[in-house]
Amino acid sequence: MSISPKSIIVTGASRGIGRATTLQLLQHFNSNVVAVARSGKDLNDLKLYVEKDLGLKGKLEIVEGDLTENKVVEQVVQKSLDTWGSLDGIIANAGVLGPGKIADTNVQDWKRGFDVNFFSVITLFQKAIPHLRNSKGRIITVSSGGAFNNYDGWGLYCTSKAGLLMLTNCIASEEPDIIALSILPGVVDTKMQQDVRENGSQYMRPDQHEKYVELYKGKKLVNPELPGYVMAALVSGGATKEMSGKFYDYNDEKLADFQKK
Amino acid sequence: MSISPKSIIVTGASRGIGRATTLQLLQHFNSNVVAVARSGKDLNDLKLYVEKDLGLKGKLEIVEGDLTENKVVEQVVQKSLDTWGSLDGIIANAGVLGPGKIADTNVQDWKRGFDVNFFSVITLFQKAIPHLRNSKGRIITVSSGGAFNNYDGWGLYCTSKAGLLMLTNCIASEEPDIIALSILPGVVDTKMQQDVRENGSQYMRPDQHEKYVELYKGKKLVNPELPGYVMAALVSGGATKEMSGKFYDYNDEKLADFQKK
Repeated sequence: MSISPKSIIVTGASRGIGRATTLQLLQHFNSNVVAVARSGKDLNDLKLYVEKDLGLKGKLEIVEGDLTENKVVEQVVQKSLDTWGSLDGIIANAGVLGPGKIADTNVQDWKRGFDVNFFSVITLFQKAIPHLRNSKGRIITVSSGGAFNNYDGWGLYCTSKAGLLMLTNCIASEEPDIIALSILPGVVDTKMQQDVRENGSQYMRPDQHEKYVELYKGKKLVNPELPGYVMAALVSGGATKEMSGKFYDYNDEKLADFQKK
Repeated sequence: MSISPKSIIVTGASRGIGRATTLQLLQHFNSNVVAVARSGKDLNDLKLYVEKDLGLKGKLEIVEGDLTENKVVEQVVQKSLDTWGSLDGIIANAGVLGPGKIADTNVQDWKRGFDVNFFSVITLFQKAIPHLRNSKGRIITVSSGGAFNNYDGWGLYCTSKAGLLMLTNCIASEEPDIIALSILPGVVDTKMQQDVRENGSQYMRPDQHEKYVELYKGKKLVNPELPGYVMAALVSGGATKEMSGKFYDYNDEKLADFQKK
């Protein structure tokens, strides 16, 4: 059976989970990817790696920009349509930690954090929905344990991830032609974790901070390829209607068919 | 045992759950209340009722204003301090439904809705925290089934209530001197329910809309006095440290000691 390539938008694609998911989509799922991030240099490095080292040409488009700007969101959606004629899926991964205790932060910082973690996702969904309806497309939002359990100093992150999880459920219910679900990628070896280890003691509860330091020391952090592979498998065709509106740990046994062997 | 009156801020106090909680605080818990809402007329009517009909003078201060404006939040906190010398509690009740499916709404409307349902609460907490630490005060946020389960067309409401629930957990954990919890008031006979019955068919799933129409027809809507009484009892002294960071249905048997007999 030949499956025509799916065209997928990945946000926050310059590093970490977004970059890993992009690479899994290109290497293992024959997908086309529009990779968007704020760091043009990292995106250019990614494109060079994909074209030179992996020898995959014409499969990756990059957009340098801030998704909190409407025109960047429009550009990203249009890039997929113009280049490949369709939009089949979204990996909504971009997010910031924006740390600080409620008492010590400024509500303007919360609003800016929500612009990145939450409102830009709404804008992206709104621009993408007509095309995802056409393609019977798929949306995966990158969730977190922080959507369920609070951590001191992570109020912005936890509240915006709680909102994003609910937003995913809403999309799943409101849009019968689109499959939408959330994946919890575990504690992944990313720049965000490095920030937590190096700066988290300033605002986190000591036991909560120590947990992350110990995971790192014990080499227990998850390789981003693993949740990246699962999300790539799901967004490029694996996610079924029955999964829509649900959330899964990337290593949930229910997802065994989609996990890297 | 004589307990000195507690000074409580109630937001969205001009009608519905906020008004009912204000009245329960004044009538049954000897509290002082700063009632804030956008409708000055309704607040004036409330004050007249409290002073003339209930004969309670000097117990209610009203502030007409929009809590999405920092200066209104500051004014509300200052009113409690200036009038009664302390701030002992907050009922964070103000909220809007802001209906519409994700595909049919504008992200600016979501941001305005979050300003009311979520960000204004952060600002209020930030201004109030130093005083609530001093008084070992209490915060009750008014939650909803919508914080846990999505309803078509209620994306803004459900996501902001999910965020507010998490925010309450964060405050409870970050502020050991403050007790913070969420109460689910049930499906209450309020203006918001009237809006849902009259206009909800435009954007809701028919079965979800019908549920609310039937609750009304069957006289099953909750009298706002009932959750109002529970929240008044809890915020004015009943809520214990063990409750902090949790959420309860107003009619949960664990709250039996605080329910209207």
